[in-house]
This record gives sequence, C-alpha cells and structure tokens, in this order.
Amino acid sequence: MKSREIHLTAYPKTEPTAANFKMAETDIGSPGEGEVLVANKFLSVDPYMRGRMSGVRTYVDPFALDAVMDGGAVGQVVESHNPKFKEGDWVNSMHGWREAYISDGAGLNKIDTTHIAPEDYLGIAGLTGMTAYVGLKRCIDLQAGESIWVSAGAGAVGSAAIQFAKAMGAKVVATAGGQDKVEYCLSIGADAAVDYKAVDRLDKAVAEANGGGVNAYFENVGGTHWTAALEVLKPKGRIAACGMIQRYNDPGAKITDNLTYIVGKSLRIQGFIVSDHFDLLPAFIGDLGKWMAEGKVKPRNTIVEGIENMPDAFLGLFSGANTGKMLVKV
Amino acid sequence: MKSREIHLTAYPKTEPTAANFKMAETDIGSPGEGEVLVANKFLSVDPYMRGRMSGVRTYVDPFALDAVMDGGAVGQVVESHNPKFKEGDWVNSMHGWREAYISDGAGLNKIDTTHIAPEDYLGIAGLTGMTAYVGLKRCIDLQAGESIWVSAGAGAVGSAAIQFAKAMGAKVVATAGGQDKVEYCLSIGADAAVDYKAVDRLDKAVAEANGGGVNAYFENVGGTHWTAALEVLKPKGRIAACGMIQRYNDPGAKITDNLTYIVGKSLRIQGFIVSDHFDLLPAFIGDLGKWMAEGKVKPRNTIVEGIENMPDAFLGLFSGANTGKMLVKV
Repeated sequence: MKSREIHLTAYPKTEPTAANFKMAETDIGSPGEGEVLVANKFLSVDPYMRGRMSGVRTYVDPFALDAVMDGGAVGQVVESHNPKFKEGDWVNSMHGWREAYISDGAGLNKIDTTHIAPEDYLGIAGLTGMTAYVGLKRCIDLQAGESIWVSAGAGAVGSAAIQFAKAMGAKVVATAGGQDKVEYCLSIGADAAVDYKAVDRLDKAVAEANGGGVNAYFENVGGTHWTAALEVLKPKGRIAACGMIQRYNDPGAKITDNLTYIVGKSLRIQGFIVSDHFDLLPAFIGDLGKWMAEGKVKPRNTIVEGIENMPDAFLGLFSGANTGKMLVKV
Repeated sequence: MKSREIHLTAYPKTEPTAANFKMAETDIGSPGEGEVLVANKFLSVDPYMRGRMSGVRTYVDPFALDAVMDGGAVGQVVESHNPKFKEGDWVNSMHGWREAYISDGAGLNKIDTTHIAPEDYLGIAGLTGMTAYVGLKRCIDLQAGESIWVSAGAGAVGSAAIQFAKAMGAKVVATAGGQDKVEYCLSIGADAAVDYKAVDRLDKAVAEANGGGVNAYFENVGGTHWTAALEVLKPKGRIAACGMIQRYNDPGAKITDNLTYIVGKSLRIQGFIVSDHFDLLPAFIGDLGKWMAEGKVKPRNTIVEGIENMPDAFLGLFSGANTGKMLVKV
C-alpha cells in the first residue's frame, strides 16, 4: 500500500520554511501476522517539533533527514491481524506526518470516542491538555483565588491552561496576538485579555487588565513576554516554563536583563517537559472528565485539510495561525 | 555621649560613590532606666544594602536620606540599666553604620563568644552563613555526590557555600575574579576554581574544570554568569538565586537570551531572601556547629579599620575587594 508522508530535508538554522520539507510516497506493504494497518485521520503539529529540527539532541532526539518525521496522530484500524485490535478501532500513536502505517501494536493506544472526539486526543484530552495541567498543578501549584497570566492564551496549551485555571478557581488574564484571539480567550473564560501586538508596554497592560500584579505566569512565549512577566509577578510569584516559542527561531536574541527580580521577589521558576510528569495522568483524566461534564472545559481546534499542507500548518504555529490546537486532517 | 555615624545623602541611580555618603556625629545621650549603651566593635556591609539605597521598596524599606543607616553589627555593652544585660556582654543587632547606640534591649541578641569569634556572628555564623545554607538546603536540595558551581566563591556567601557544599558531600567548582581568589577558593575546599576574568568562555571553562556539566548553580553574580550557568547546567539542574551583584548598578543591561534552556533542560530556579526561611535556623546552627568542630568550615573575613572607611568598604563589595565576609572594625 502507498502512503504519502512528509520528510525533513535540512536542519533550519533560523526560521524554517517550506523548503525544509518535502512530500514523498512510500510503499508500506501490507500487514503480516500480529500486525495492523492504520489510516491516520488527524495529525498533530506542535512547537516542540522545532527543537527536533535543530539537528542536536535536546530532551528528545533530532529528526533524521530525508526520512518521515514522527509526531502525535490518531487514526483508524483498516486491517488487523492482531487480536488486540479490530477494524474501525480508533488509535492514538506517535506515527504522525504520514497517511498510513503498519504496526505490531507497540505504542498504539486504543481511544474511546464515546464522549471525546478522536481529534481531541491530540489536543485538550491529550498531551496538550496534560501539559497545561502539569504546569498549573505541579509547577505553579495554582490555588483558588490566585491570579495567573497565561501567555499565548489562544494557542493549544494556552487555551487549555485558561480553562483549567478557571476550573481551579483562579483569576485569569490572557495575552494573545490580535483582537480575534483576545475575544476567543474571553469566550473560553479568561477574566481579561490583552492583545500584545496592540500595546506599547506589555507589563503595564497586563497589570492594568488584571487590576495589579499576578501570582503566577504560564510561560509559552519567552523573550519580551518573559521580561514583562518578571515585572508583573508579585513577590513569591511562580512561573511554569512550558515553552518559549518566540525564541526557538532566534537563539541569539538580546533581551533586557531584569532577572534580579528573581532574587528581589523570591520568584520560583520551573521548566518542564510533560513526559517527566506522567504520574499526574490519572489526576488529569479525573479532573478533565469532571470539568468537561460540568461544561467548564471545551475543546477548540484549528484544522488544516490535507497532508500536503502539513508543513504550512507547522510553520503557522510560529506566526500564530492557530486558535486552540493546530491539527491536520488527512 | 557622641557617636559617629554614616548617612546616605542621595539615592544613586547607577553605581554608588563616596559622594552618596557622609559621616556625621550625633549626641546619643546616656542610657536611662531599662536601657543599655552599646559600643559597636564590628559593622557589616552587604550587597543587599544596595537595594535599600534605590529609594524604592523592594523586600525591605529603603534607607531614609540624611539619617543613619542600619545593618548588622556586633558590639559590647558599656553601661547597663537593663537586668538582661551586663557590662562586657557581646550583642548582635541591626544598629550598624554607627559607633554606639542606646537601646531598651529590643532586637539585641546576646552572643556566646566562647567558640565563635564575635565578628563571625556577622559572617559564617550569622545571616551570611544562613544565606548559603538556605540556598543549598532548601532551594537546591543539594545531595552528596552531586556537582555544584558556586559563583563569587571568594565572597562572603560564596565562601560559606563552598565549605557547606563540601561538608554536604558535593563536588564544588567555584568561580572568582583573580588568581588570589581562585587560590582562596581551592584553599577552603573547592575541587576546582576558575578565574572568570582570565577566560573567554566562562561556560566552557567551568565545564572543563568540573569535568562536565553541573547539577546545581549557586547564583551570586547574574548577567554573564547567569548566561553561562544555563549553558553548563545538566538537565533538571537547580539554581539558588541568592544575588546578582553584577546587575545591581546596571538595571537595564542586555544579555543574550538563552532562557529556552529553562524549558529544554527542565531547570528549577528559586530566588530567595534569607529572612523567609528562618525556620531552618535550628538545622543551620546544628550543622554549622558540627562542621566547625570537625574542622570542615573555617571563617574568613576581610576587615577594614575605622568607621570613616565604611562607605569604601561597602563600595568595595562591587569591585570584589573582599575575600570572605567584608567587615568594618570600629
């Protein structure tokens, strides 16, 4: 069987472009004894993938060049010779960036689509939601009545963090780029939202929107947002450092050094990788189910059609093309 | 009775100079019923005092202008009309920057000079030592067998941190400015020491001296040292952010933004103020007594003579004039 897939052709030094990718077609054969054939239905593009395109080992191995990349994907079993799977089963895997694949079942997780749509297992009910949860629960230890600034509030993790923080009883001020995204942040429950592109002094705008300093900051952006956060945080403020997308394509950028606030305000900063915190998964599933049943949390995705558009969907993450989780529908 | 004292005359915007201080003489009267007259013997100058000279409230109130400043001091009771004190008693107080004072006894702590010299209550057995202890124990949670980089290793807190970290079973690489200070760091037990003024790439020099990345970083310097620390720390590294003296006089400085390491390496950073952690005092006293009895920890001070030289002693903190704790002998 033929499957189209996306290859990385070069490690971009700065901003990646469409020229760093190409589409290829591979004959994946047919499933043998104990194997299944899966047709992917939704593919995930995530900011962390940029790190894997740098050619150096960070917390995960780099992508190989001229080979199919991997990433989150949900698909349906088309043909099964494995007793654990039957035709029509929905499965979640890391075999993304391709239309179809053959597997012996290792690393495939069957998902229950009764109450949660398949694509949401790549978003709010998957690693994206779990990431927001780990940041709020473990890194920040957010308490009811506290205030938190969520950056990239209209993004995949940010929009989950806004909803989860509200469900936890906190007051939320969000930032996002553009009026549409600001309105989206408000629509999912943020108490206030600021268009960072429309203000001169981000720190002052956030403090004003929040009615004073914040107890916590959910860091998805870095750079200018980080600098503003150190200004806006109250003493003993906490930062969950989840991502710094502004910096991924510009590693030598200069910022103003106001890091002395870390000392002066006794700030606590915790960088994290969701996979180090899978022990929180049962708590996440429990809370998420409750919050969704109560209507406090709603999925939201930006869906791009066609695997041929997957590089563009990925590149769109860095220009803010997505509201909620960015997905590709195969 | 006349007492000479040091006043702050203006809030320096950048680097303070001798012109920001003046010496005055005050008639402090004589002690009444319930009061004691104390003659200070040693006065403390500390980097945190720079923050109090900025005219804005940080975690402590700013100094008042044209009035005597305060700060750590040890002295002897000269005359007592208070049953809790007798002539000759050594006392520790915050009534520094002056030769003598009258007190009703509030805020005065009698100190036992049998095994610890009076001046060391301003250094390794006082807030300075406690600061190093809080950073290592609570912020970093340093474990035996781990490696730690201690910056400003020849300074008051740094030299305590080197000795305490060694006593805790860790491997220590220190940095300091100049060959004399490097040798001092080695003499108090550092496994390796680097003269930061003599190297081009601080990060590479530290990693080489240590034989690889470090598990923890004790931050006293900020700026270029901070940037290097993010490079040198291993994944899940921890930073105790105690001070950033390089930045106190240069708040708008630019640094290279390599903060994405916080995410990529899952770093934990904890800024702290020693006074928030006084619950650790009994543990500190217990460990310090044991370490001193075992000869693992030795005090070291730089002593400047004469209250008239106190502003210079303070300013010397920012040019690295001290090895160990900087004190003024009255």
